[in-house]
Amino acid sequence: MVRTISILGSTGSIGVNALEVISNLKKSFKVKYLSTNKNVDLLISQIKEHKPKSVAVVDELAAKKIKSALDEMGIELLMGKVGLLDLSQRNDVELVLNGLVGASGMQPTINAIRAGVNVALANKESLVMAGNIINKELESSDAKLFPVDSEHSAIWQCMVGENLDDIDRIILTGSGGPFRERPLSTFSNITRDEALDHPNWDMGNKISIDSATMMNKGLEVIEAYWLFGFGLDKIDIVVHPQSIIHSMIEMNDGAIKAQMGVPDMKVPIQYALTYPEHALSNWERLDFFKCGDLTFQEPDFERFPSISLAFRALDLLGTAGTALNLANDITVDLFLNEQILFTDIPRINEIILEEHPWIEDPTLEDITNLEEWVNEKIYNL
Amino acid sequence: MVRTISILGSTGSIGVNALEVISNLKKSFKVKYLSTNKNVDLLISQIKEHKPKSVAVVDELAAKKIKSALDEMGIELLMGKVGLLDLSQRNDVELVLNGLVGASGMQPTINAIRAGVNVALANKESLVMAGNIINKELESSDAKLFPVDSEHSAIWQCMVGENLDDIDRIILTGSGGPFRERPLSTFSNITRDEALDHPNWDMGNKISIDSATMMNKGLEVIEAYWLFGFGLDKIDIVVHPQSIIHSMIEMNDGAIKAQMGVPDMKVPIQYALTYPEHALSNWERLDFFKCGDLTFQEPDFERFPSISLAFRALDLLGTAGTALNLANDITVDLFLNEQILFTDIPRINEIILEEHPWIEDPTLEDITNLEEWVNEKIYNL
Repeated sequence: MVRTISILGSTGSIGVNALEVISNLKKSFKVKYLSTNKNVDLLISQIKEHKPKSVAVVDELAAKKIKSALDEMGIELLMGKVGLLDLSQRNDVELVLNGLVGASGMQPTINAIRAGVNVALANKESLVMAGNIINKELESSDAKLFPVDSEHSAIWQCMVGENLDDIDRIILTGSGGPFRERPLSTFSNITRDEALDHPNWDMGNKISIDSATMMNKGLEVIEAYWLFGFGLDKIDIVVHPQSIIHSMIEMNDGAIKAQMGVPDMKVPIQYALTYPEHALSNWERLDFFKCGDLTFQEPDFERFPSISLAFRALDLLGTAGTALNLANDITVDLFLNEQILFTDIPRINEIILEEHPWIEDPTLEDITNLEEWVNEKIYNL
Repeated sequence: MVRTISILGSTGSIGVNALEVISNLKKSFKVKYLSTNKNVDLLISQIKEHKPKSVAVVDELAAKKIKSALDEMGIELLMGKVGLLDLSQRNDVELVLNGLVGASGMQPTINAIRAGVNVALANKESLVMAGNIINKELESSDAKLFPVDSEHSAIWQCMVGENLDDIDRIILTGSGGPFRERPLSTFSNITRDEALDHPNWDMGNKISIDSATMMNKGLEVIEAYWLFGFGLDKIDIVVHPQSIIHSMIEMNDGAIKAQMGVPDMKVPIQYALTYPEHALSNWERLDFFKCGDLTFQEPDFERFPSISLAFRALDLLGTAGTALNLANDITVDLFLNEQILFTDIPRINEIILEEHPWIEDPTLEDITNLEEWVNEKIYNL
C-alpha cells in the first residue's frame, strides 16, 4: 500500500533525512508535495528523484529562478508564505511531515489538521506557540499528531500499549549541549561557531543554538505538555551526555521504560511515517560493546536559565509559551547574526516572557498580534 | 474487584516478596492457597495474615507438626508432593504464582494451565524442562503465562502494544554475577559463601549459584525462547553489572526499548499480578542522579561456559534443555553441600547435555525417565 506524503521544509535537516527514509522505504511512500524556504538547488534535485505534483518556495526571488524549469517538468509552483499555506491545507495526502523551522511552522500544522490530514510534527514551535489551539483543532478533526522530535518519539514509543493513567512521569533526556562543562563565567564569550558545534546530533542552526542554551529542552517540556497532557510536576529532565537513551516514562509501579539507540533522526522520522510499524531499516545500530558508559546528571538551572523559563511558561500557560518561543526565534537569529551575546538569549527571552500582554486563552489573531508586539519590543530594547 | 490467587512456594524469596506485594495491594487480591517445602514457622505467620483456605506442605514431617494447629483454624492441609500437585490443579483461583525452586516447579505449572488458570511464572525450570509441552498445553487452554523473572518481565513490558514481527532481537541483560572479574584460574577455589553473595539481587540459594555460574542467564535464554518464540540467533546477552536495565528488545528500525529500575523483584512480581496495569506502589524508585554510570560488556564464554551450554541446548532442542536443567539442579545442590567444586558444575552439566539419551519431542513420561537417568549418571560419575 503506497501512502502519499507532503514534506514541508524538505531542504532542511529533517526534510533531507525524511527523504532519505522515504527512499529506503520506496515502495511505501509517494512524495506529492515539497516545500523549501529558498534552497532551490537542493529542491530541484529532490524534485528529480521524487517527482512531486507541486512544490512551494517561500522566498519569491528564489521561486522565480526555477519557475520555467518547473513549468517544463509540469510541476506546479506555489510562491511565498501564501504558497506554503496553500500547500499545507491540501487534503489529498495522507500525511504531512512538518519539518519547518521556528514559528512559521505553526499555521501549516493547523492547516493540515483542519484538512483532516495526519501531521508528523518536527516543528515543536507549533505546539509551544499554539498547543491549546492545536489540541482543540485535533478534537474536531480526524487528523492525528505524530511526534518526530527524538525525545517525544521515544516517549510515544514507550507509551504504546500502556494506559496513560498508569504513567507516573515523563523523563526527557538531554545531552546538555556543547557547554555542559564550560565555565559559566565565560558564557558571554561563546561564539556562533562554538554554539553550532553540537556533540551528538547533526541538526539545523536554529535547533543547534537552542540545544546550546538548553532552550531546546525547555521547548520540549512545553511540547510534551501539549502532546501528552502531563503537567509540569509530571515532567522531569535528566542530562544524559551520550544521547543514547532518547527519553523515558516512569510507570506507577516504578518500572521505567526507555527508548534507546544511536543518535540518528532517521529513526524517529521513520517511526512517525510508519507508525504503528517499526519498519526494517539499514541505518547504523547501537552497539552496546562500543557505545561506552551511560551517565546521568541533574540539569543545571543556573547555567541554563532557559529551562527555568520553560517551566515558568508552563506555570503561566496562556500566551506564555507563545511569547517565550517568539522571543527565542528572534534572539537566536540575532545571535546567529552576531548581534547579541549568547547570554543575551535567555536574558531577553525572560523579559518578553514576563512583560508580554498575557492572554489566558489566545486566538490565532492574538498570537499574530503578539508576534508584532514581541518583534517591536526586542528591537527597542 | 478482588482476584483470588494461589502462591506456590510462599516461603521462598519469590513467595515472600509476592505476599508483600499483595499486602500492599490489599484490596485487589485474596490469597486462597499457599505452599511451602518445609518452612512451617513462616507458613504459619503467612496463614495468620492472609487466611488462606488450604495450604500444602511438601515435607511430611514438617506438615505433621502443624496439622492440629491448622485443624483448629479450619484450614485444609495437603501433604507431600501429592498435596502440592493437588493444590496446583485447583481451578477456583484466577492466578497461580509459581515461585517453586528447580525442576519440582514444572508439573504444578502444567497442572494450573490444564485447569485453565493463568500462571505468573517465576519457576524458569518449567519452561526450560518442558517448554514444548507447556506451549502445547497453552494452545488448548484459556490460561496464559505471565513471566516473573525480571529479565522476561522487562521484555514482556517492552513488547506491550508492539507487533512481534517488528522485533528484531531480544537483549537479555545480566549482572555477570559475583565473579565477573575474579581471575579464572581461581574459579575452582570458589566457596559456597562467595558464590551465594550476589552483588545486586537478593535471591534464593539455587538462583544465586546459577547467577554465579551464569547458568541463570543460560536458563533465561532457553526460557525466552519458549516464552517469546525467538530463536537462538535472535537472543543476545549483554553483561550490565549495575542491573538497572533489566532487559531490552530491538525493533526492526533499530529503536531499542528497555525496561529499567532498581533491582527489586517486587516490581516484576507485581506486574505479573496486575497486568496489564502498572499499579501504584511505594517501593524505592530509581534515582538517575544517584544510580551511577551504566556500563556494558560482552559475555565471557570462557569464564562462564554455562552460557554456551544453554545456546547449545537451544540448538539441539528436544530434551537438551531438560537434561541441562536436571543436571544443573543436582550439581548446584552438590556444590551447595560442598561435595563438588564450582568448576564441576558446568563440567558435569556439559557431560549430561551431550551424553543423555536425546528425544526430539518428549512426553512428560520421557522427562520423568530422563530425571532418573540423570540422577543415576551423575552419582556414578
